[in-house]
Amino acid sequence: MTDSTERDRLTVVIFGASGDLTRRKLAPALYHLYRTGALPQMCHFVGVARSEMSDDAFRDALMSGVKEVSDDGLDGWDEFASRVTYVSGSSIDDDSLAEIDRVVSEYCADGSKDNRLYYLALAPSLYAGTLEALGRGGMLDESSGFRRVVIEKPFGTDLKSARELNDVVHSVLGESQVFRIDHYLGKETVQNLMVFRFANTIFEPLWNRNYVDHVQISVMESLDTEGRAGYYDKAGVLRDMMQSHLLQLLALVAMEPPATSGADALRNEKAKVLQAVRKYESDEAAENSVRGQYAGYREEDGVASSSSTATYGAIRLYVNNWRWQGVPFFLRSGKAMAEKESEIAVQFRPPPHTIFETRNAEVTPNLLQISIQPHEGVHLTFENKKPGTRMGTAPEKLEYHFPPQVIRDSYERLLLDAIEGDQSLFTRSDEIEMSWQIIDPFVESWQTSLKSQLYPYEKGTHGPAAAGEFLGTARNWHHHGSDQK
Amino acid sequence: MTDSTERDRLTVVIFGASGDLTRRKLAPALYHLYRTGALPQMCHFVGVARSEMSDDAFRDALMSGVKEVSDDGLDGWDEFASRVTYVSGSSIDDDSLAEIDRVVSEYCADGSKDNRLYYLALAPSLYAGTLEALGRGGMLDESSGFRRVVIEKPFGTDLKSARELNDVVHSVLGESQVFRIDHYLGKETVQNLMVFRFANTIFEPLWNRNYVDHVQISVMESLDTEGRAGYYDKAGVLRDMMQSHLLQLLALVAMEPPATSGADALRNEKAKVLQAVRKYESDEAAENSVRGQYAGYREEDGVASSSSTATYGAIRLYVNNWRWQGVPFFLRSGKAMAEKESEIAVQFRPPPHTIFETRNAEVTPNLLQISIQPHEGVHLTFENKKPGTRMGTAPEKLEYHFPPQVIRDSYERLLLDAIEGDQSLFTRSDEIEMSWQIIDPFVESWQTSLKSQLYPYEKGTHGPAAAGEFLGTARNWHHHGSDQK
Repeated sequence: MTDSTERDRLTVVIFGASGDLTRRKLAPALYHLYRTGALPQMCHFVGVARSEMSDDAFRDALMSGVKEVSDDGLDGWDEFASRVTYVSGSSIDDDSLAEIDRVVSEYCADGSKDNRLYYLALAPSLYAGTLEALGRGGMLDESSGFRRVVIEKPFGTDLKSARELNDVVHSVLGESQVFRIDHYLGKETVQNLMVFRFANTIFEPLWNRNYVDHVQISVMESLDTEGRAGYYDKAGVLRDMMQSHLLQLLALVAMEPPATSGADALRNEKAKVLQAVRKYESDEAAENSVRGQYAGYREEDGVASSSSTATYGAIRLYVNNWRWQGVPFFLRSGKAMAEKESEIAVQFRPPPHTIFETRNAEVTPNLLQISIQPHEGVHLTFENKKPGTRMGTAPEKLEYHFPPQVIRDSYERLLLDAIEGDQSLFTRSDEIEMSWQIIDPFVESWQTSLKSQLYPYEKGTHGPAAAGEFLGTARNWHHHGSDQK
Repeated sequence: MTDSTERDRLTVVIFGASGDLTRRKLAPALYHLYRTGALPQMCHFVGVARSEMSDDAFRDALMSGVKEVSDDGLDGWDEFASRVTYVSGSSIDDDSLAEIDRVVSEYCADGSKDNRLYYLALAPSLYAGTLEALGRGGMLDESSGFRRVVIEKPFGTDLKSARELNDVVHSVLGESQVFRIDHYLGKETVQNLMVFRFANTIFEPLWNRNYVDHVQISVMESLDTEGRAGYYDKAGVLRDMMQSHLLQLLALVAMEPPATSGADALRNEKAKVLQAVRKYESDEAAENSVRGQYAGYREEDGVASSSSTATYGAIRLYVNNWRWQGVPFFLRSGKAMAEKESEIAVQFRPPPHTIFETRNAEVTPNLLQISIQPHEGVHLTFENKKPGTRMGTAPEKLEYHFPPQVIRDSYERLLLDAIEGDQSLFTRSDEIEMSWQIIDPFVESWQTSLKSQLYPYEKGTHGPAAAGEFLGTARNWHHHGSDQK
């Protein structure tokens, strides 16, 4: 799959190398890719951060990260570590970048091709400056090898800032060099959404307003802000989760079948969905949402005692196109929930006509649940004959569970894709901007309690009760198996 | 559910009471119904057969049957047995019938309503004579209570004899008094076919020629003729299995949604399907079938050494209507098979367009398997992302298994239905005749090896290899999970 040849050399430069992301996600992913032979034979890893550190100290920090997340042993660690270098400096400082450029260029003094992946594991406020500095330094020029940049989320904080950042990006890079990462798209079960829809004959005919009552997309976290409340208080659930993970899931669930699984075809279809989502005025956004804040949030470090930041949100969107007209898509996400669970639930309409006696007046409508985490799998609730009764029916489940041992870490998958130049699972500039366009009215309406009430909820619950009523009559939020009103 | 009142008295009269069916099926079913309070409080059971036997000897025979088939204990057996009477006589002899009539009438001397269910557990050659004798004796007259007759299969041996028998039936009974039993329809999983199709929204839109490639209906027995070869040699697989069980399953799979689950609505839809099945000339029947005979069959007692009776058969039928035009229905049944298994398999077409890399050139098309026995359940094969690959796919199964302890015996269900007058699961006269019309050309073409070759097969296999080729390219017979060409 890799496009490298024997003369290709790859250097992965990580800006923000002293952070948690590098230690707990990028290092384990790169080490595992290296160890399994997925990377080009000639490869190097350069960590960049402000702090002074020796190469060995940096290598040890990475090793501790690897050990923390995996008990898979450290086979070949020394060989991997010998390819790791640390450079102390700033990503927006020309001298630091010149030093990095020198280090990397030296690897290629033998005439090998100088391919580079820059990973911006930085505070978002540094993205623009770093890209500009890289551009100034000629470090994005592709004449001696590819130059790709991975940019972490959040990409902007609203439509305006995202546009500004995209302008900077496009002033120094072609869109084909940009890899806006959303690690959710690296998850097996998220990719399986596409396979499930388009490698099967039997779901696509049902996947439209004729058969679907509504769709639920949930990304629930059991953890609270974990001491990151200072950052979180500025973002809240809308910016932290909805604009990225949840809208990307919506796009995958609702899109038309692409002609190929290539990046262009796929991202065109996703963009079309986001484009078709009805854009609310802020009053409408208030009516189509519920927000909550867990008890105790305002006492956390870095949070104002009057903070109205939502740690839970549920929003209702409509995709205004032929396929989905009138079908509500409910998106919800929360912190400090009873359980960690991410799931797509497609709730089908009830049968048009009932010919059987049932315990309740109506049969239970079919429900398809694609569980993203922690129990990756597929559940299809269907109505079944209740054994022993004349013709009574009861809901049962058809179930499939992904074998857990083969689930690949999403960063590993996405890093490899970026190295190989496959942009399918990365977010294009237009998707980013359209996502902010969808989210901005909610952000606006949630700024004042006049429009949108902030409901308190206890930690370890399923969020505020108002979120249940918000779904409408005869609808429940679905959880692994059990339902909650 | 029962339509009885306190003044209703029920008598079940079993003709052929010394046979295996009575001992192993009817007695356990009636005893269990009685014990669970499903029968009217005032009820009696009269066994009739030629042999001389005391009431107690007959009761002991029934008890031995109950013990054989169930280890559920004998709670309340004595109470049940006290309601059992034996009459020695013949079902075609007027004096015997008069004696039975006297016994039953005496139960109702207190003025209670004299409801009767006559069960013909007789050799088929006795059906007509018995019905005529019952008619002559006035024992089918419903002025003092209902008179219902359960008639075991086979109902006739071809269209002509079935019509003649129906004529006799209708000369003494209204169709609403007739319960032609096919115990297959009493199975939970067979009834679940209807629930599965009509209590769910998601299957019916796929249930047609646009999405279905073909349908397989299999009723495979691991047992051979078990010493009944003398009877079997005259019937063969076509008359013994195809005309009844398999065509009934076909009707349930292929029918349009009935407006209610009532007997008329349901049987109208089943009859419409059988009516729409393409009727073959005998040459066409030969082309659309494969037959086999297991090695050693001709050496069995009662079988001619030159017998060409098929113990295995596979036939291809078409339902010529809007929904099913061009979709082959493959029906097969055999004795001495590798496994006992009955299953409906709906094979869907492959997706119209492939956007993913797959190990093989094509994705595996969806397959729905409704397993009737011995592992009652539902399997839905779907294409899933192959974890760890970029976008490779592999087939997996969504599974549901009926909890085995609640599966109710089919005779119990059907006896109760007959007692309660529900004809939904019994075969109507037109269905019977249309079934023979479908089967007769196969019988005819199979009488000569000039038209249809008789393939030998070894016991304990899946039948003759020719049955695999018969399906056509890229199609396999499906077995629980595994596939066989």
